[in-house]
Amino acid sequence: MSTPTSNRRTGRRPGTTDTRDAIVRASREQFAETGYDRATIRKIAGAAGVDPALVVHFFGSKENLFREVMALPAVVADAMAALADGDRSTVGRRLAELVVAVLENPATRVILVGRIRSAASHPEAATLVRETVSRDMLRIATALDTDQPELRATLVGAHVVGVAMVRYIVDVEPLASVAPETLIDLLAPDFQRYLVGTL
Amino acid sequence: MSTPTSNRRTGRRPGTTDTRDAIVRASREQFAETGYDRATIRKIAGAAGVDPALVVHFFGSKENLFREVMALPAVVADAMAALADGDRSTVGRRLAELVVAVLENPATRVILVGRIRSAASHPEAATLVRETVSRDMLRIATALDTDQPELRATLVGAHVVGVAMVRYIVDVEPLASVAPETLIDLLAPDFQRYLVGTL
Repeated sequence: MSTPTSNRRTGRRPGTTDTRDAIVRASREQFAETGYDRATIRKIAGAAGVDPALVVHFFGSKENLFREVMALPAVVADAMAALADGDRSTVGRRLAELVVAVLENPATRVILVGRIRSAASHPEAATLVRETVSRDMLRIATALDTDQPELRATLVGAHVVGVAMVRYIVDVEPLASVAPETLIDLLAPDFQRYLVGTL
Repeated sequence: MSTPTSNRRTGRRPGTTDTRDAIVRASREQFAETGYDRATIRKIAGAAGVDPALVVHFFGSKENLFREVMALPAVVADAMAALADGDRSTVGRRLAELVVAVLENPATRVILVGRIRSAASHPEAATLVRETVSRDMLRIATALDTDQPELRATLVGAHVVGVAMVRYIVDVEPLASVAPETLIDLLAPDFQRYLVGTL
């Protein structure tokens, strides 16, 4: 799940955006590999090839760094909210496609895995993750204008967390290696019920 | 989720069974609270009020201790296998009732939470948990004599893990506080499909 970071500073001196991006990538990897409580600003800075002071300069505290890098990219959050606009009878499948795309892309999977590892490792991190999980899923559940959107959002969230744990963190077969298309087929009916079905 | 352990050694001197039970309880609590990698035989012994050497005497290594105390009690494993004997059209509900009973009972919830926290915290613990998860759920899936029992078992396992994470570890509302009966209603249709439905 690591992406190469070693040659990021070769060639020209990196600008502010490059440096910030390097810190974002390194911190996501640290949180995903070790969880919130064992990730340190020093280790993240080391992996990004920058001075720890620079991490503090850009992000302030570790808590704030976690909040920023563990948010889903805006493009994903927007795609999620947009799911509610299409045909209601297939919204579960569209969500399954988006969730599987996020989980199968190493750049976004690292965010989900980082949240889960962190939430499991420390109550303080759990608080941070709690806000994030509810917010992401609540957007689509609310947009669909059904009863109990909060409960629907947490049911979808719980299912995504469970699949991510078993498939990517604990690696239980055969779920760990079913094809992405199969995973979409498996998740779609559950999401359909959670989002617009009778609970 | 902690149960009182401080007065366990007052009164008469505990016998072998009492001592072993105290170690089992203390180690489940430690694994559930801190995860496998941060739980130590010293801390577990301290919580159980015994000498660390006694923990080693009874259980050998930390790895072996984890294996023994993180197995579901035989009564639960037997109840799970027996679910396959009844009416197939309601097997999902019976499994949901059993899963919710296990999760709502602090004495067994601590086992599930301990597995999840441990698997999330360390790859080595993930290996231990992997075996356990597959074994428990595979028993019922195999007994039902359907196609793809391994995949069905991991789907049920993933769902239980996700709900346990969100409800008991990350505490996301409203799933964290729905009544047990409601949780059974929510899980039953998913389990029904996973166990005997079309995947």
